[in-house]
Amino acid sequence: MTARLSVIGIGPGDPAQVTVEAIEAMNAVEVFFVVTKGPDKQELVDLRFEILRRYVREPSRYETVEIRDPDRDRTPSEYRATVAAWRTARADAWEAALREHLHEGSHGAFLVWGDPALYDSTLDVLADVLARGQVAFDQHVIPGISSVQILAARHGIALNRIGGAIEITPARRLADGLPSGAEDVVVMLDAATAFTAISEPGVHIYWGAYLGSPDELLIDGPLDEIAGEIERVRAEAKERKGWMFDTYLLRRAR
Amino acid sequence: MTARLSVIGIGPGDPAQVTVEAIEAMNAVEVFFVVTKGPDKQELVDLRFEILRRYVREPSRYETVEIRDPDRDRTPSEYRATVAAWRTARADAWEAALREHLHEGSHGAFLVWGDPALYDSTLDVLADVLARGQVAFDQHVIPGISSVQILAARHGIALNRIGGAIEITPARRLADGLPSGAEDVVVMLDAATAFTAISEPGVHIYWGAYLGSPDELLIDGPLDEIAGEIERVRAEAKERKGWMFDTYLLRRAR
Repeated sequence: MTARLSVIGIGPGDPAQVTVEAIEAMNAVEVFFVVTKGPDKQELVDLRFEILRRYVREPSRYETVEIRDPDRDRTPSEYRATVAAWRTARADAWEAALREHLHEGSHGAFLVWGDPALYDSTLDVLADVLARGQVAFDQHVIPGISSVQILAARHGIALNRIGGAIEITPARRLADGLPSGAEDVVVMLDAATAFTAISEPGVHIYWGAYLGSPDELLIDGPLDEIAGEIERVRAEAKERKGWMFDTYLLRRAR
Repeated sequence: MTARLSVIGIGPGDPAQVTVEAIEAMNAVEVFFVVTKGPDKQELVDLRFEILRRYVREPSRYETVEIRDPDRDRTPSEYRATVAAWRTARADAWEAALREHLHEGSHGAFLVWGDPALYDSTLDVLADVLARGQVAFDQHVIPGISSVQILAARHGIALNRIGGAIEITPARRLADGLPSGAEDVVVMLDAATAFTAISEPGVHIYWGAYLGSPDELLIDGPLDEIAGEIERVRAEAKERKGWMFDTYLLRRAR
């Protein structure tokens, strides 16, 4: 009997933002693989354990296995090549953990921040592992609320306007300015403050950090007026917490 | 004391795809405003009542108020003007219901399919109602799983590829082909089969209908090979159920 592997989206941090489907899946799992990224992000690991404590009715039925994710060069000159090498190293580490702990007929799971479908590499790494043929499993994905959805909810807005399109983009694609085709641009994975380089007038920014957590920060306003304030608030928060996770919507005037 | 109005995303239909936060909010609500769209969509109204029956612990504490949404011309010559007139008619109907049933200090709610942030007009209509100044309320939005997230989960894919952008667009913007800037294009609100007009080679389609429901349909493959099959399956399902709700991802080859 093939093992079962669930990839469970658990939302951006608030245990209340977990779905009933995710809770049901957690209660059927025997081994949780917890990917860790080093001491700075321990808070994120702890939050996952908190979610398990809160929702799994029989804590004795599961074990947790930590997978230490290889570190990644965040400022590479060759972006795609660096990411590819990092993916190989991750596949090595994940494959080793799955071979050792995901037994035939058992049910394992990865808990994924936000939604596995949105700028998360879990599915990519698992596809790489499967392709190597050393472990076998039936994979099942459960969606979760993403930070982008919390961003919109907290600001009380929709991401699109009537008849309009939305572009969701990694920050590094903003180097040449806002994409020409989209009126509403959601920016993910911003390691710095890519919005400060946008000089186009008439852009409104809806910014949020640590969305769904007690440390949540929200600012919105005309980009040319408040970019500096966001930069300052962001730097202070990053200094205080040791890490930063933010996302924002850039909305062109119609 | 101002009334409170929650806009609660309840996912695309499967009661298991509701979040704990949404359930907690439902249990605090005294009046649910249920927007109806005519007899064809009665199944969607019933599903909302099923979600309330399942999750509200004291059914006697809430009432439901139906708001019959004005019909909309789906094939207008002046798209934006027609939508604007329809919005005014909706604001009239919603304002009347809120004035009559949302009392000072009480807690009302709208249950929204999917996520209020994604191609849903609830927040727009409520903003129009608020702007008129005839009713007052504190608004609170709770995100829900959208059909786009179920689409990705069922196909076992992420919506983006490494370093790439995603465009989410209404189908009518595909009239001139796929947008030039995006490798991955999610299409919403397709009243017909806009994908059949895409002649660009090397596009893979991930299609889904009635996502999250027992009638769920999934097809994927090279667009130029399977567009006809999707068209046929879609037409049969629409004939059988009386309505169709589908969404899809068009993925360009890298």
